[in-house]
Amino acid sequence: MNADRVLADLRELASLTGGPDGARRVCWTDEWTRAREFLRERLAELPVEVEVDEAGNLWAGLDGEQDGFVIVGSHIDSVPAGGWLDGALGELSALEALRSAAERGTPPVGLRLVDWADEEGARFGRSLFGSSACAGSLDVGEVRDLRDRDGERLEDVVARHGVELDRALESRARLRGARAYLEVHIEQGPVLESRGEPAAAVLGTFGVERHLAVFTGQTAHAGATPMELRRDTFMATSQAALEIKEVGIRHDGVCTVGGATSEPGVVTAVPGRTEMLLDQRHLDPDALAAMLAEARDACERAAADQGCELELRYLWSIPPIPFDDRLIGLARKSVMDAGGKDTAIPSGPLHDAAEMARLLPTVMIFSSSSPPVSHTKEEDTPEADLRVAIEAYGSTVQATLELAAGGELPPRG
Amino acid sequence: MNADRVLADLRELASLTGGPDGARRVCWTDEWTRAREFLRERLAELPVEVEVDEAGNLWAGLDGEQDGFVIVGSHIDSVPAGGWLDGALGELSALEALRSAAERGTPPVGLRLVDWADEEGARFGRSLFGSSACAGSLDVGEVRDLRDRDGERLEDVVARHGVELDRALESRARLRGARAYLEVHIEQGPVLESRGEPAAAVLGTFGVERHLAVFTGQTAHAGATPMELRRDTFMATSQAALEIKEVGIRHDGVCTVGGATSEPGVVTAVPGRTEMLLDQRHLDPDALAAMLAEARDACERAAADQGCELELRYLWSIPPIPFDDRLIGLARKSVMDAGGKDTAIPSGPLHDAAEMARLLPTVMIFSSSSPPVSHTKEEDTPEADLRVAIEAYGSTVQATLELAAGGELPPRG
Repeated sequence: MNADRVLADLRELASLTGGPDGARRVCWTDEWTRAREFLRERLAELPVEVEVDEAGNLWAGLDGEQDGFVIVGSHIDSVPAGGWLDGALGELSALEALRSAAERGTPPVGLRLVDWADEEGARFGRSLFGSSACAGSLDVGEVRDLRDRDGERLEDVVARHGVELDRALESRARLRGARAYLEVHIEQGPVLESRGEPAAAVLGTFGVERHLAVFTGQTAHAGATPMELRRDTFMATSQAALEIKEVGIRHDGVCTVGGATSEPGVVTAVPGRTEMLLDQRHLDPDALAAMLAEARDACERAAADQGCELELRYLWSIPPIPFDDRLIGLARKSVMDAGGKDTAIPSGPLHDAAEMARLLPTVMIFSSSSPPVSHTKEEDTPEADLRVAIEAYGSTVQATLELAAGGELPPRG
Repeated sequence: MNADRVLADLRELASLTGGPDGARRVCWTDEWTRAREFLRERLAELPVEVEVDEAGNLWAGLDGEQDGFVIVGSHIDSVPAGGWLDGALGELSALEALRSAAERGTPPVGLRLVDWADEEGARFGRSLFGSSACAGSLDVGEVRDLRDRDGERLEDVVARHGVELDRALESRARLRGARAYLEVHIEQGPVLESRGEPAAAVLGTFGVERHLAVFTGQTAHAGATPMELRRDTFMATSQAALEIKEVGIRHDGVCTVGGATSEPGVVTAVPGRTEMLLDQRHLDPDALAAMLAEARDACERAAADQGCELELRYLWSIPPIPFDDRLIGLARKSVMDAGGKDTAIPSGPLHDAAEMARLLPTVMIFSSSSPPVSHTKEEDTPEADLRVAIEAYGSTVQATLELAAGGELPPRG
């Protein structure tokens, strides 16, 4: 792996499709197409054939001495006004992995690059489009009529980019022969920065439980209603929120109250109704279930203490998706060898790797994020940390190819 | 006083200007004019002359054996879809006080009824229009260009009802000779209902401090940001809100958080900014100042504990307006004599009486509210409680007339 080439490619892509307002490679737009052309130009220098599958994912591969292949990839699309590294670091590192493998000759097993279509879901609100189609978890009927800000339907827009939505799940055939999936990405959080570590192996993606806690009390005049006669839903919400913070700390997970909406929501009234947004995440399914149960208890206790009633409404959930222990081991060693520490952390955000992990041995490597702000143009990582992550990724790819050649990680049928 | 006549008048007014959707006597509308016509018809049966002053307030009076006069009154206007008692109870009880005084012959000092214009401010958002003009506290320039939902200006609308806005403050001349002001009103809160008391004397109106607490922290990814690295403004708000509740309890005042608005306010982000609406009220100015100081401390402590910053923005305030001790004494005794207890409570809401209390010895009597909901058609009071309040009001008027005749409560020059 030559980190210099990855950094040069990243900077060139940023100058092509970024600028003072950040990256603008929103999927299913002309600038995304331009970013893909940049990728195609680079791939054209290699002895590979480029194909786009039924879900709009771009593939290019080297055959190996043995059957089957290891997949490397990420996504070249971005949110509007996004950062220069989110997705692009992984995609251009995968490119470099392919390039350096080609320079070394025939790899021990095949090596295949993928650029997943529409990881961000920035235009239609559905993330992981291409990878979930490939993994078979996309519900085509659910996304068909999603509309962008201009009212255009997803089905019509992807058709203009050569994707016939009803055939998108046929993308799954691309995984026949796949042995493993490897991705490098920025952390998008402050953990590595706070520990002063450049990179880490990733244990898997958090499971998520999302709920709306609806507290119902009694709207009352702020002047005429003594404290002891109130049924105050903002106080119930406040009590619940502080307890839920402790739930997150106790289980070493994360619990977030994103905000609350009160009715009537004016300065002169005790609010008779407040809705609180709750998001909980953990890598361990039992811990996630316990966090949810304790959050429910906290909300019920808060409601009772403040004379209110509670309804906890389910919004969305996804189970934790752990990565492959053998590959995590390889990634940890690679990070150490590249100058980092022997560390593995969970991923709060979802990634295309989570879709692949449903079907294939999978691992990710994170570089630090500094400042650790996600989906903004301020997103950045020190170059030294990027080099460690890129090097570690290259070593993990190499070690995975060798592991596969040694008889582990059999090709998917 | 004949409570039967007051109740009959209240019911007739409700059938004229109410209905299944509640009272509709919004000031400066045709239905308000119709309510006033009802009042004028009743006054036409008495030996009084009816006049409307420069601020649109309606006056009618009996001269007494001695100079000067006691004022009785309230407001016949209502909010849209309001209750049958708010304002009307006081106005029609004042009518009955005038009527029964007329039946008894010449009172010891004069007795004058007032129907204040636009107590509710329902059309233009400025309450206490007529009474504040009469008290001299109305800022004409501030209200001139207020607009209703249809875009009509206050100045133009009141002109159609005979009020030349630039002369409204001349209404003050009506107070020359005034000795005291007496008003009965529903409580609009749950205190008397919760104590099982029908009525009470009122100590004065709460002072109010309104602020916006703005907490600033760091917006962060709900999945990627460990609990210990957060600067979470919703947690700061929650901690502050719970402490502020204790401040209200500790000082026997009221503190209300009407709601909070977080940014970005989505389920997937730790909110980096939250604005919290804060209203605090107390009858004692020192206690109100202490409550504000303690709320500020609570907000600062919460901000510091959660790694956030605080800005406390001033919105509005009004000092407490205490009523007259002698008149409170008369009102307490009258309530007891009418079958209630020896009770006096503060008023959370403002009233026309607060404007009069700036210039004249003033007291109010509250009937219970049950259910204690204000400004809705469900607003109600048991008839037995209304009778106690009406009787007590009549006795207070009589005792005040006698006190004035005895040389106290000198006429205002």
